[in-house]
Amino acid sequence: MNDQQTNKSWGGRFTESTDAFVAAFTASVEFDRRMYRQDIAGSIAHARMLTRIGVLTEADCAAIIAGLTEIRAEIERSDFEWSVALEDVHMNIEARLTERIGAAGKRLHTGRSRNDQVATDIRLYLRDAIDAIGMELKRLQGGLVALAAQEAATIMPGFTHLQVAQPVTFGHHLLAWFEMLKRDGARLADCRKRVNIMPLGAAALAGTSYPLDRDYTAQLLGFDAPTANSLDAVSDRDFAIEFAAAAAILLTHLSRMSEELVLWSSAQFDFIDLPDRFCTGSSIMPQKKNPDVPELVRGKVGRVNGHLIALLTLMKSQPLAYNKDNQEDKEPLFDTVDTVLGCLRVFADMVPALRPKREIMLQAARRGFATATDLADYLVCKGLPFRDAHEVVGKAVRLGVETGRDLAEMSLAELQHFSPLIENDVFDVLSLEGSVAARNVLGGTAPARVRAAAAAAQQWLAETE
Amino acid sequence: MNDQQTNKSWGGRFTESTDAFVAAFTASVEFDRRMYRQDIAGSIAHARMLTRIGVLTEADCAAIIAGLTEIRAEIERSDFEWSVALEDVHMNIEARLTERIGAAGKRLHTGRSRNDQVATDIRLYLRDAIDAIGMELKRLQGGLVALAAQEAATIMPGFTHLQVAQPVTFGHHLLAWFEMLKRDGARLADCRKRVNIMPLGAAALAGTSYPLDRDYTAQLLGFDAPTANSLDAVSDRDFAIEFAAAAAILLTHLSRMSEELVLWSSAQFDFIDLPDRFCTGSSIMPQKKNPDVPELVRGKVGRVNGHLIALLTLMKSQPLAYNKDNQEDKEPLFDTVDTVLGCLRVFADMVPALRPKREIMLQAARRGFATATDLADYLVCKGLPFRDAHEVVGKAVRLGVETGRDLAEMSLAELQHFSPLIENDVFDVLSLEGSVAARNVLGGTAPARVRAAAAAAQQWLAETE
Amino acid sequence: MNDQQTNKSWGGRFTESTDAFVAAFTASVEFDRRMYRQDIAGSIAHARMLTRIGVLTEADCAAIIAGLTEIRAEIERSDFEWSVALEDVHMNIEARLTERIGAAGKRLHTGRSRNDQVATDIRLYLRDAIDAIGMELKRLQGGLVALAAQEAATIMPGFTHLQVAQPVTFGHHLLAWFEMLKRDGARLADCRKRVNIMPLGAAALAGTSYPLDRDYTAQLLGFDAPTANSLDAVSDRDFAIEFAAAAAILLTHLSRMSEELVLWSSAQFDFIDLPDRFCTGSSIMPQKKNPDVPELVRGKVGRVNGHLIALLTLMKSQPLAYNKDNQEDKEPLFDTVDTVLGCLRVFADMVPALRPKREIMLQAARRGFATATDLADYLVCKGLPFRDAHEVVGKAVRLGVETGRDLAEMSLAELQHFSPLIENDVFDVLSLEGSVAARNVLGGTAPARVRAAAAAAQQWLAETE
Amino acid sequence: MNDQQTNKSWGGRFTESTDAFVAAFTASVEFDRRMYRQDIAGSIAHARMLTRIGVLTEADCAAIIAGLTEIRAEIERSDFEWSVALEDVHMNIEARLTERIGAAGKRLHTGRSRNDQVATDIRLYLRDAIDAIGMELKRLQGGLVALAAQEAATIMPGFTHLQVAQPVTFGHHLLAWFEMLKRDGARLADCRKRVNIMPLGAAALAGTSYPLDRDYTAQLLGFDAPTANSLDAVSDRDFAIEFAAAAAILLTHLSRMSEELVLWSSAQFDFIDLPDRFCTGSSIMPQKKNPDVPELVRGKVGRVNGHLIALLTLMKSQPLAYNKDNQEDKEPLFDTVDTVLGCLRVFADMVPALRPKREIMLQAARRGFATATDLADYLVCKGLPFRDAHEVVGKAVRLGVETGRDLAEMSLAELQHFSPLIENDVFDVLSLEGSVAARNVLGGTAPARVRAAAAAAQQWLAETE
Repeated sequence: MNDQQTNKSWGGRFTESTDAFVAAFTASVEFDRRMYRQDIAGSIAHARMLTRIGVLTEADCAAIIAGLTEIRAEIERSDFEWSVALEDVHMNIEARLTERIGAAGKRLHTGRSRNDQVATDIRLYLRDAIDAIGMELKRLQGGLVALAAQEAATIMPGFTHLQVAQPVTFGHHLLAWFEMLKRDGARLADCRKRVNIMPLGAAALAGTSYPLDRDYTAQLLGFDAPTANSLDAVSDRDFAIEFAAAAAILLTHLSRMSEELVLWSSAQFDFIDLPDRFCTGSSIMPQKKNPDVPELVRGKVGRVNGHLIALLTLMKSQPLAYNKDNQEDKEPLFDTVDTVLGCLRVFADMVPALRPKREIMLQAARRGFATATDLADYLVCKGLPFRDAHEVVGKAVRLGVETGRDLAEMSLAELQHFSPLIENDVFDVLSLEGSVAARNVLGGTAPARVRAAAAAAQQWLAETE
Repeated sequence: MNDQQTNKSWGGRFTESTDAFVAAFTASVEFDRRMYRQDIAGSIAHARMLTRIGVLTEADCAAIIAGLTEIRAEIERSDFEWSVALEDVHMNIEARLTERIGAAGKRLHTGRSRNDQVATDIRLYLRDAIDAIGMELKRLQGGLVALAAQEAATIMPGFTHLQVAQPVTFGHHLLAWFEMLKRDGARLADCRKRVNIMPLGAAALAGTSYPLDRDYTAQLLGFDAPTANSLDAVSDRDFAIEFAAAAAILLTHLSRMSEELVLWSSAQFDFIDLPDRFCTGSSIMPQKKNPDVPELVRGKVGRVNGHLIALLTLMKSQPLAYNKDNQEDKEPLFDTVDTVLGCLRVFADMVPALRPKREIMLQAARRGFATATDLADYLVCKGLPFRDAHEVVGKAVRLGVETGRDLAEMSLAELQHFSPLIENDVFDVLSLEGSVAARNVLGGTAPARVRAAAAAAQQWLAETE
Repeated sequence: MNDQQTNKSWGGRFTESTDAFVAAFTASVEFDRRMYRQDIAGSIAHARMLTRIGVLTEADCAAIIAGLTEIRAEIERSDFEWSVALEDVHMNIEARLTERIGAAGKRLHTGRSRNDQVATDIRLYLRDAIDAIGMELKRLQGGLVALAAQEAATIMPGFTHLQVAQPVTFGHHLLAWFEMLKRDGARLADCRKRVNIMPLGAAALAGTSYPLDRDYTAQLLGFDAPTANSLDAVSDRDFAIEFAAAAAILLTHLSRMSEELVLWSSAQFDFIDLPDRFCTGSSIMPQKKNPDVPELVRGKVGRVNGHLIALLTLMKSQPLAYNKDNQEDKEPLFDTVDTVLGCLRVFADMVPALRPKREIMLQAARRGFATATDLADYLVCKGLPFRDAHEVVGKAVRLGVETGRDLAEMSLAELQHFSPLIENDVFDVLSLEGSVAARNVLGGTAPARVRAAAAAAQQWLAETE
Repeated sequence: MNDQQTNKSWGGRFTESTDAFVAAFTASVEFDRRMYRQDIAGSIAHARMLTRIGVLTEADCAAIIAGLTEIRAEIERSDFEWSVALEDVHMNIEARLTERIGAAGKRLHTGRSRNDQVATDIRLYLRDAIDAIGMELKRLQGGLVALAAQEAATIMPGFTHLQVAQPVTFGHHLLAWFEMLKRDGARLADCRKRVNIMPLGAAALAGTSYPLDRDYTAQLLGFDAPTANSLDAVSDRDFAIEFAAAAAILLTHLSRMSEELVLWSSAQFDFIDLPDRFCTGSSIMPQKKNPDVPELVRGKVGRVNGHLIALLTLMKSQPLAYNKDNQEDKEPLFDTVDTVLGCLRVFADMVPALRPKREIMLQAARRGFATATDLADYLVCKGLPFRDAHEVVGKAVRLGVETGRDLAEMSLAELQHFSPLIENDVFDVLSLEGSVAARNVLGGTAPARVRAAAAAAQQWLAETE
């Protein structure tokens, strides 16, 4: 009982030790210990700065750095004994440091508090995570662009309302996915700017009376700047919410791609083949080959949306400055990082292995009057106002529905029944190849445009590496 | 590679084994193994039923039951080797069973699929969880009622808009908390009715060709009934969402109580004393005694709101019947259960240890014109319409604000300046004791009412045990 | 300015009138006036009760009832002038009442506050809404059951993971939807129990000194009981959250049905025909016939999930008793009611008009080895353990994938190559009709079971009307 | 019926007109008409571009521009008849245009679709909204900085865990709010970059066969660039989600400020006076002056969190390209804009009117051992390791709690009892003024630092105007 109490960093004023269940309930070491590397890096930088301003001696500083380096090695070879009684990663490491190097360890906490320490650790952690996510994102984008370049002229039906709308190319579709992910990368880069600001030096909430050189610590840790206000520094968790929001949009994108992969893997669409190694089977139905990976990724958007709401709820109407509630920021954040990384990794592995079934896609595009808009545009070129052309084609489609034929399968005479402006050249317009080639506007689906867009994307990837 | 493949329950049709990262990414055993007890209970009941209908022999049934019983013991003494390659709790246990008892183990899966098996396990798990939550809820309610009975006449300011409104008693306030929790219990009981329905027998999605006696299995497992439609049975996760919603309301209640405990623990309110064992200190500020437990509980509502959204997002626009997405139902559900149980437990421990500071509460009630409504009601009794009385008292309060005095501190002459209807008996009305005693309506704050309400609550608790 | 001030129900103590933008920003009359009918009903019941206990005279009571009845008529013929300066529906109606009948109108507010008044109004409103929703829900269920009975033997592919799994019947699928909705009805009925409790009499927060007969008022308004604690009564918004959660599950169900309707309407599935009157077209593509109604309903689950989070966020960590925040409860609640009613209505209109394309469904079921499980079960009957049978069939499916044939298209010799247990009777088992008929377990897809389930559902609908 | 049908932009292929309730259910004009200005601006730019590339004649272009300009005027003087049968803002305006100018109006829709048109309108609308929000944000920030400069040396207790932690200045606290809002501005500016990209030219989903000059249209409308992929262009709603997320963080900040304003307005804190014009009263309690504005703003974070979830749910697992679901993007977006603007406006009005009660703040800082950390730091300067100093002070605080005195109220002898290192100079350290002045680190609460920070903030505001 008593030694539990003396282990605590704050026992002095208390007359009664913490209830055992309360100790476990309020401890965070089970999940915050994954930040040990950031905690140690932060402590080393803090020690260096304290030495520079004369608060620590060179000898103390050297002992602290050596001690922390050893502790990091202990943790990495699983030789470190984590203690719930010591509450969190910070006190676990500091206690072990004092055990190893004595009084110098006790001096390390000068001019800082766990409030600014944890805020610093979590920002360092998230900065590293964003960088790792950026790498996987680029890898996935690279896979998409390579496949898009290869499939720039592969015709498939383009859908709106899941109804066949107009023919597009498979490469064009893949580049739509690329664009979504490009925005995700930009959002994460913007978020990183607001993550990479250093709270250390805010101490508990008010700053400290030691003449800390915060710019120096920030520089040592690779932060862009120290925070500008100490109360805000220890209470701000915007960066976690903003990251979770960016992650939720990213996962929403992956859920949309997943939905399409699942649709395309169905017997009804049958547009692609997913390699067996990304699928699983059924314990009861021997024939099943299920697109588990996209299904699971689609489901994981729920988890990330949930974490976003968890963080927003957490911060709602919290008064300044630090409150214990904020300990709840870590688990949603960590799981968001893990989820994003895992989903990107499995997608980046899977995308290059997708095998489009070109002939089936082509046949699908032939159904559903996919070139009806082309016929309307043809009539506009012949002088009909667009709205009138639309009406004419609508009537031709109605005949097609009733007689089970596509527009290209009607005779010229039949088509002329709807408008005398239609002539023999109409059949070029009604071909799928003619249709996609004609959409040669910036951002359009013409194979030439898709090839150019893929080339530009490849260059962008190369330049931003 | 090959034996990984043959370990799978569905390898036959596949030409390529699962990618290693995919295997880890799609496996659920790390989190679903906590349902081992339910999985084994379900298998034993299934085996008994298969035996009853003649699909299994008595000998096979005995072997299966003995084998599963041994496996449960293995798991409980941590002798069981969980394998990620075997994907989930179901296949891990079944594989071990076949290893132990041979071919009989392979016959156990007759007439069922993992789709109905997992849906059954999770409902059994949640049913047990709801019962455990019910117990902790009652324990917390018991603590509240006991304290309320004791503090039935302790006067404190009642707040609206965090402004002093009218005097109430502390016991009355505690019984408001009791009522919130009572609704939570009722919601969980209603939810339990929809949880306690058995999917087993739905097989993969369509039912099975074996003449299963589903009513018998349901009876063995304590379910109220089997599900009525097999497609619905394997795809339904309503029960998880409904539970998460009930949990979110419960945590919202705890967040509200927590907010008040934090307020009351502040130096500005200072209405209660939280024992040291429910508080922690600061690593930098030696004087701090922080109400960590209510703060942390307040934060945990975020987590539960998040899980609710995770589950709703998960199910949005899923086609029938089972999809892999549904594997994502378990972690939010399990963490919701853990959170609710932990928060209730720590509150149930803490509430009986709250020490109200009666004198400070009383003084606080004296400030803020808490009896202004009583003066208005007094004037109504003397014949003034309520709206006019309100206007009169408003003007008296304005004088009080300007001169820094409560209504009870004004002279009769001063009060009569606002209305000639005011006579010397007004000072009874303006006393705090008179005010609370007067609110003797059903549900009101009069000590007599509070005592009666506490007694009724105690009886209800006793009766529903 | 001054008369704005004197219009207010609380002007007495204030030295400065409300800022004009603040007045508009904080007023609720624009949205809460839709509760005028409930507000008037509540006031009439309150007046009757006040008269019964002798606080109002019979004459006052008659004047109040006559006045309020006139006002209701004014509102319903759009002759009522709503004033933002009067803040809310309550003060608008009361001010008009006093204008019409004089001092008696001012006496109406005796023994109540807007805090308990608004809580009463909103519960009355929600109770009515739940009843209206229940009617539409039953109408939709009736449509589903009728169609299910008609299509009890219509074979379609049953899907898991959107892969063909086993044949089911369309009627069975529709009854899965019926079951989902049945749970929604049960949840709403449970919610209604907690809605239908009367706060009136809690006054501002503490009860009142008038000897109100709350049981009598509750009885007049059709409430099951008065609330048990006044502080809880004015602060509780559980009922709104619980309703929103039930609505979110209901909309999740509709989103799932919508997803399937959209899939089935695609050229790739082509399982159903949606009548033109439930579809819209495209302003550019003349051939388009878009399933707008299910798409829009699918999107509307977002709105309801959002309202649920809005309400949960709203209540998080609010101290007792009433806070102004709670004014934000109404818009999400009202929009949830409107959304649920609109979606149910349009679905109830649409479902009876769905036209299944039986031949296309049947052909789709023939693809995808839908009877593979039947072959495995056949082998089990011949003595093979299930897991071994699964392996045998998996290999046969692999041959089918490689040679483009279903199991039923292989010769007996080919099949016997995989297991000598296979004999000529296997082809009965591999037929779709044989497969569905065999799943004759409770809840299974056998046409006989589907017919029985539809009949039971029809009886339940008739009995619960 | 028939004319309803011919009014539609897509009637040609349909055999049955839209069901009346379906027409109302699927129409968006009731809410999307607020984008009339953007719709008209987009149409004018589109017409200009079509003229430049030779698709429209100069005469047609002039007629279109004149017609649309007239229509805008009609709308703004409420002379425009909006028709639900015409579905949306786009068709309402186009139909009126054709009514006014004939065939030229029908030519306007050449090379575009409602899919790219609505995406363009909503981006223009949101860009304008972000700019308006930026203005109000700056106005609020200006108010905070001015007050902060004035109160740079006003001492108040700084809180962590709502316990008195260390003295800070009120100006420092206000600048913490300023920093929160500064990040909000940065996030909105980053969001604006992704909003300000032009979808027009994507047409329905595939681009168009007309040789549109998309760069020219983008330039006319002030867009930074055209979108790069047509499928993505019509389906992307990231910008709405990202905006809603930024708004949710902003409202979370306002909810935190509101919480503090509510706390500070309570009788227990009593730190500030909110002018009457930002408060309202009670219909029953004549003394009440409620901080309605901060309470309501605190509640409004729920609404915005809800809209964020609505949008995320909406987009989850939508396949490409446009689906009707997306019509549901507008109401949450519009209400988010209205909420943010309204809350910022009322806060910007209110903040300069806040009156801090300096003496009460100062007295509050004297309680709660606010300078305990200073004593610890003092002991560190005298050579004690920080952790030991913390222990010493903890014991002194325990004595203070037991005897009801602050540290500064103890005698030197008493203090020396805890550590012989304490000397007479300790009392400088224990003064509030000394404490805040000592925290002279970058970001700290020393009045000099606060003044410098306020000056820097003022300069930043001036420069970014």
